[in-house]
Amino acid sequence: MDPFMQAAIEEAQKGLAEGGIPIGSVIVHDGKIIGRGHNRRVQEGSAIKHGEMDAFENAGRQPAKVYREATLYTTLSPCAMCSGAILLYGIRKIIVGENQTFMGEEDLLRSRGVQVDVLHNATCIGLMKQFIADKPELWNEDIGE
Amino acid sequence: MDPFMQAAIEEAQKGLAEGGIPIGSVIVHDGKIIGRGHNRRVQEGSAIKHGEMDAFENAGRQPAKVYREATLYTTLSPCAMCSGAILLYGIRKIIVGENQTFMGEEDLLRSRGVQVDVLHNATCIGLMKQFIADKPELWNEDIGE
Repeated sequence: MDPFMQAAIEEAQKGLAEGGIPIGSVIVHDGKIIGRGHNRRVQEGSAIKHGEMDAFENAGRQPAKVYREATLYTTLSPCAMCSGAILLYGIRKIIVGENQTFMGEEDLLRSRGVQVDVLHNATCIGLMKQFIADKPELWNEDIGE
Repeated sequence: MDPFMQAAIEEAQKGLAEGGIPIGSVIVHDGKIIGRGHNRRVQEGSAIKHGEMDAFENAGRQPAKVYREATLYTTLSPCAMCSGAILLYGIRKIIVGENQTFMGEEDLLRSRGVQVDVLHNATCIGLMKQFIADKPELWNEDIGE
């Protein structure tokens, strides 16, 4: 297992243990994690802290060059908001744990030149399947439905 | 002047007075402001709190129906991240103060059925022109350049 996807999964599991939505993300530059995070809708009552957004927030104010050279790992295919953040900061490559339980804006990202690799990871799929079965209303709120 | 755009401009001016980037936003539902905010890159060292994102965060966890019926006002044409948040939450209409100093993802929004009205407001243009002239590096950081 890629250690960076493993770190994103650990973030997702941390979120789940907190009673939250099990989606995690890390941003990697030059072989090191510069930001990591998980969805904080429940924990902070946040409308904007999806896993990827939390990773950006924790990476913080980086020079444009750093973000442009970075790779973002996320356990779940990124929604429109998180895909927009990826485009804003010029991330060129993302690694997605799975897109079976939710298909995000992968087509938009690819159309703008972002490389999107999908791992179809069983752990990521299992986390989301269980969560959606357990708390469908919370999940729908998170994806705006 | 539309009182809601006036409120967004007041948010932008508040941000400027704090030493920050002068962009403000309000989200309106059923004739009332349910969330208001301004860019907090400088104030909180935030990579994700653009004006519109801060307004979403302050509106908080609303039912999908509320966001879908809401109108978002922003002093500046929304970047990819903020446009993505607008799409995530199914906002159907946005009012933009100006798009002369920065053209955001208006085409993407319109292609997804969002009504985008641009006011070409002189106060909004003046705030950004002065800010970009004063702090070009900070501005470039905020838009990922």
